[in-house]
Order: sequence, then structure tokens, then C-alpha cells
Amino acid sequence: MVFVTRKEHFNAAHKLFNPEWSDEKNLQVFGKCSNPNWHGHNYELYVTVGGSLDPVTGFVMDLKKLSQILKFKVIDKLDHKNLNLDVDFMKGLIPSTEMLAIAIWDQIADEILQANCKLHRVKLFETENNFVEYFGK
Amino acid sequence: MVFVTRKEHFNAAHKLFNPEWSDEKNLQVFGKCSNPNWHGHNYELYVTVGGSLDPVTGFVMDLKKLSQILKFKVIDKLDHKNLNLDVDFMKGLIPSTEMLAIAIWDQIADEILQANCKLHRVKLFETENNFVEYFGK
Amino acid sequence: MVFVTRKEHFNAAHKLFNPEWSDEKNLQVFGKCSNPNWHGHNYELYVTVGGSLDPVTGFVMDLKKLSQILKFKVIDKLDHKNLNLDVDFMKGLIPSTEMLAIAIWDQIADEILQANCKLHRVKLFETENNFVEYFGK
Amino acid sequence: MVFVTRKEHFNAAHKLFNPEWSDEKNLQVFGKCSNPNWHGHNYELYVTVGGSLDPVTGFVMDLKKLSQILKFKVIDKLDHKNLNLDVDFMKGLIPSTEMLAIAIWDQIADEILQANCKLHRVKLFETENNFVEYFGK
Amino acid sequence: MVFVTRKEHFNAAHKLFNPEWSDEKNLQVFGKCSNPNWHGHNYELYVTVGGSLDPVTGFVMDLKKLSQILKFKVIDKLDHKNLNLDVDFMKGLIPSTEMLAIAIWDQIADEILQANCKLHRVKLFETENNFVEYFGK
Amino acid sequence: MVFVTRKEHFNAAHKLFNPEWSDEKNLQVFGKCSNPNWHGHNYELYVTVGGSLDPVTGFVMDLKKLSQILKFKVIDKLDHKNLNLDVDFMKGLIPSTEMLAIAIWDQIADEILQANCKLHRVKLFETENNFVEYFGK
Repeated sequence: MVFVTRKEHFNAAHKLFNPEWSDEKNLQVFGKCSNPNWHGHNYELYVTVGGSLDPVTGFVMDLKKLSQILKFKVIDKLDHKNLNLDVDFMKGLIPSTEMLAIAIWDQIADEILQANCKLHRVKLFETENNFVEYFGK
Repeated sequence: MVFVTRKEHFNAAHKLFNPEWSDEKNLQVFGKCSNPNWHGHNYELYVTVGGSLDPVTGFVMDLKKLSQILKFKVIDKLDHKNLNLDVDFMKGLIPSTEMLAIAIWDQIADEILQANCKLHRVKLFETENNFVEYFGK
Repeated sequence: MVFVTRKEHFNAAHKLFNPEWSDEKNLQVFGKCSNPNWHGHNYELYVTVGGSLDPVTGFVMDLKKLSQILKFKVIDKLDHKNLNLDVDFMKGLIPSTEMLAIAIWDQIADEILQANCKLHRVKLFETENNFVEYFGK
Repeated sequence: MVFVTRKEHFNAAHKLFNPEWSDEKNLQVFGKCSNPNWHGHNYELYVTVGGSLDPVTGFVMDLKKLSQILKFKVIDKLDHKNLNLDVDFMKGLIPSTEMLAIAIWDQIADEILQANCKLHRVKLFETENNFVEYFGK
Repeated sequence: MVFVTRKEHFNAAHKLFNPEWSDEKNLQVFGKCSNPNWHGHNYELYVTVGGSLDPVTGFVMDLKKLSQILKFKVIDKLDHKNLNLDVDFMKGLIPSTEMLAIAIWDQIADEILQANCKLHRVKLFETENNFVEYFGK
Repeated sequence: MVFVTRKEHFNAAHKLFNPEWSDEKNLQVFGKCSNPNWHGHNYELYVTVGGSLDPVTGFVMDLKKLSQILKFKVIDKLDHKNLNLDVDFMKGLIPSTEMLAIAIWDQIADEILQANCKLHRVKLFETENNFVEYFGK
């Protein structure tokens, strides 16, 4: 088993806000992250896949292929978007980094299986000081 | 003359949008940066001041003092805010990185003069691939 | 299980020195790291906690809470201090990066349990070229 | 068990090319990475070893010792070299990052065992956007 | 005058070699950088342009436009290429970082003038430890 | 004129302390940076030299030569040392980053002139958030 990781970027706006709560409760729980006029981040996404080495190519998975999956399933849907309003696969979810990492996993796990690899880890930096890792259920 | 630089961070949402234009023209000029539901960035701000060395302290300017000026005049007004809607000193300006760098300069230049230093450069990263530098008029 | 990581910084002085050895033996084993007049580092600390996702907040653990635990239990005790002389929880230990990482684990593991999470990893960079990871016993 | 990591660099040229294929097939599979006149990278290598802590030194393994093993067994053989032509332990292998990571593992695993530690991970960055991890068989 | 910088990457192979010298003299002057089987780098290129701010767009220069110029005039000609053999604008020049930075300047200065900006600086990293800056004649 | 920069590292201990003041005054002016038991940093030093290009080598200055000057005149004297106690060229000076940058300039400017280049800039990072630049008198 060898693991290969590809890094991608996207910029997005969000606010941390539970619509079932009052504004006061949202401010109390989420602090300035609940600012109603949105704020945003340069997210950095590291996706790791595992598999056996193909001796003919020297590859676990062609990174151009992995990059394409990430582009169509993740980056095109998130980059320069609003995570609370614009993203189909985040509908009804609070757009915390944790929720977003799990949702990205669910977007790509099957496609990576079809490429004969196994999704191993989604690692998502919200800022250089905070990141989330998800390894599946 | 010795130059000292302090780095600060802030997260903010914006869109590039000229309100005198149609949505089509905004899309044509600004591309996905004009997405109506906002997007955002982790901005990194480097502020450089110049001055002579005080031999008693070894300092050009106390960086705690510079950091305080930046906190009150810049970071508190920008962090977790919407640059088009929430920021008094950006009213009526298109929130490009260029405009924002000049506006930050205007916010702090006088205070730094009063600390017997001279503001030398505002350098603002929108992403790790794009940054703006402004040295005053 | 989702994992969340918070990065913190501290600056500290130390020397690698076993008080039961002669200066010659210390120099032989630890090289220039045993310089009697101390040297120091900008340490970078990454603390990872794991837990289940609270669907109401979207959080595994509130990072403001984690950051507070780190501030009171670790950073306030280490920042701008001498690891051989000033730090209660390093008394009698050689302040290698390994020892320090384990000691930081012991400082915070219980408090994180009380917040319904599990400490997963302490990762400590001494320089950009050397780091230590500890996952508990 | 505590884990210690050392980072090293090397620059090398390579092309991705299977000599049993035509140039057309190589171009189709490997894209511009098969350019016949070579291209190259600044590789970054992170080698992680695990072991128990020696209370007398505070070390898992003396990093000067680990750095020497890496220098003689890996860096001296790869730095400023051509991975397809110059490197004895890559003979007959396609010099993908995956193949190179496994070959580096095989170069050093025994020497690290003799130092009473266990090689845990070889992590190799080809660029800042792509890296490979190998944990042994 | 406001300055805007765009960062781009390319990977390339080269050797430092003066064809009018013997192999011995090349080895003596250029060291392991003259290894006949090539080596390579991940180059990072920062191109800075200066101009006045267009108040209608908030831009000095549209970075998509700058990125396109860099793609067609520089990156497509250098990425995954051999600097001694493959690059028309490096013919007859020793492919040091200095020479390459000046050649990149000459490739793009006129096009940037036609976009009503002025090329201010070409900054080229060969590794994270070495870089060259050129500001024109 | 082309500019070439070399990056070097060193670790050192210091405290900010004016011996003509009481401990109370030192604490008031320098805060936790005056902790009597020292603290320390991973310093990063960028030295920039300017000169004309030698067409025979493609070099402004051989970086191996620049690196040697820095090793003997600066790094060997500062690395793993105490800036207040161990460094001949810092005697009697408060070891602020500003003072240290000027002292490094004075250590190397003449040697670089003898190599037919001109020292252009000393840039010294104390942490990733603070740095000093000095361009000579």
C-alpha cells in the first residue's frame, strides 16, 4: 500500500450560523464567525488515496486523474462560492470545516474506488492555524 | 534607516462588483470573483515601518505598539467582516486587493508618524499567488 | 471520528545537558546543543483532538476552547521561558523535543477528555527540519 | 513509542518513461512528464522513525545519526543526479515519486533497525502539490 | 503607483556547463551543478508589475491577463523542459538562475507595457534557499 | 545590476535587557522578552548581494562563496549561541533583531566587496511574524 496526496485550493465565503437559533445564541456560540455579512477563507485541501503500485507506470493513481475528479466534484463547486448558499452538497449543513471535510469525502469516495484506489484521508485547512482530518466512517 | 515588518492576518468576504454596471458586465470583467453570494480569503498583511535605531532599546519601533495600531485601526475592522458592506473606510470603493492596500495605508500612516517612524510599505496577500505592494504617493 | 488540529507558537531557550555527566561527555553526546550559555527555538505546536461531530454546531470541539486550554496549560508556561530552569512540568527532565512533546501531552490530555474529546496527537517542531510526534501510551 | 522526523532536500532530473513502450504511448500515459530532454524537481524528503525514549539523553534517536544515514544512503546518491541514469538503486525502475519513496525505504530500513529504532514513514514531496507516503509492507 | 505580483511555478532540468571549457574546468567552477546527466528544480517565479489604479475596476492590471502572458511567453516554454536544450530564448546562454531571470524579463516586458503597466521586478527562486531579482537595465 | 539572495538559518538564545536599567524598567519596556532565564528563536537570514553578470559563468557571485562567507563570519558565531554572552561582535549591544541585522551587515560588507559585489540587503526574521531589513548607511 502506497499513499499519494494531491493539494488543491479554493476560496469561499461562509458564516457559522444555525438557522434554528436566535442571532444572540449564534453570536454566543460562534463568536465573530457568525457575522451576518459573511467572511471567507483561502481553503487548502489535501486528498490522500491509497493503493498498490502499478509497476508498468510506477503510479498508484495518475494524479492528473485525481486532480480532474477533484476539479469537477469539489473545486468547481466551491471556489469563489458561498458555502451556506451556493453549494448543493452542503444544503442544510452548518458549513464548519468539519462538515465540509466530510461532505468532500462523500463527493469523491466512489469515483476513487472506480479508479481502483481507496480514499484514505481528506485534510482541510481553514487557515494555517486550523485544520480538520477525516478518514471515513 | 532600518526597516521593521509586522505580519498580521484577517479573514474577510468580498465580491468584485461595480454597482454602476449590469451583472453581465461585472461577470465579464471580474469573472467568478463577481459571484453574487460572496467568496472570501485569508488575507496576510505585512506592514513595514522605517526609522532610526534607538540605542537604549535597540528598537526602531516597539512591535507591540505597531501591533496595537494594526489591531485597532485595521484588523478589528476587517476580520470576519464583509469588505463591501461592513467596513467604514472601504465605503464606495471596489474591494480589490489594490484598493484595500491603499485604504490600509491611509488608516495607519499618521499614527505611525506620531510614533516617530515612517510607514514604508503595505504588502497584502489575497492568496499565496497574488499580492499587492503600496509605498504611498 | 473527525480530527481537528490547532497550531500554536512559543519561543524558548534550552540546552541539552545531563547534569549527571561531565561537560566533556555532554559536548560529546549533544554537540553544540549543549552550549552552556543556552540557545533557543521558535517552536511550533500542533495539537490534534478527535471526536464525533455535534450536528448542532458542526464542531468536534470549539477551537476557541482548545486554544484556551493550550494557552493556560502550555503556552503561558513555555513562551519566552527557559525550558531547563523556568518550567514546572519539565523539572528533572532533559528538555529534548521528545521529552517536551510527552510533557505537553500529559499537561492537556485530561482537560480535553473533560471536553468530550480525545487527545490524538502532539506534534512539535523544533525547527522546520526536525519534529516529534506523540500519540500517548 | 515516540516518532521523530528529519527533513532533507535534493534536486534531481528525471523523465517518466517506460522503455518497453513507443514514444507515443509514453506521451499518452505520462504527458509532458515524458519530455525526452528531462525536467527536474526540488524534492523534499521527510523520514520518520519510531522508538522508545532513552531517559538519559531524552532522544529516540540522535538526529545527527539519522541525518548521516540519510546523507550517505540517500542524498549523496540522488542530489544533482539523473534518476533514470545515475542512481544504482533505481536501475530498471520508472522514477515516479512512488517508486522513489519505496526505494528510499529499502535503502535505509536496516540501518535504522541497527540503531534500535524502526523506520515508520518515508514521505516524499515532488512539488508542494504532490507527495507520496510509504509505511513499508 | 501600486505594485501587483503574480506567482507561477515550473519544473525544469538543467546543468551549469560552459561548452568552451573542459569537463574538468566545468566541474571545478560549477561543482555538482555540472553533473552531465542533468538535475532539476521546482522554480518559483514572482513577476511584479506597477501602474496606477483604475478606479472603475480597482485593478492595476487584471491578474488573469498577467497570468496569460506568463503562461504563453514563459511557463509553456519552460515547464517540464530542459533549459540547456529545449528553450529558444535560452539558446547560447548558461542557464543560471540569473541568466534565466533576465531572459524572462526580456520575454514579457513589452507585452506588459502594451497593457499600460510597467514590469517592475522578476524574482526567481531556484530553491527555497537561493533566489535572484532583476529590475531591468 | 542583478541581485542574488542566499538564505541561512541559526538558532540562538537572548533576552532584551538594558544593564543600565532596573529589572522593573526592563520588564516594563521589553515585557516577557526580558525574562532573566533567556528565551530563543530560529532565526532566518536572507543576504542579498548585487552585481553585474559574468557572461562566462552566468553568475553575479558564486553562491558557494557567499555561503562560505556567511558560515565563517556569521553562522558559526551565532548558531546555538547566546547573543548576550557568546558573540564577540554583539558585545555591548542590546540583541534586538535590528541591532543584530546591522551587526551582520558590518561583519560581511567588506568581504563581499572583495568578491566584486555589493552587499544590498540583510533581512532577518526573528519569527515568521517579525522581520528587519537593513540596506546600509
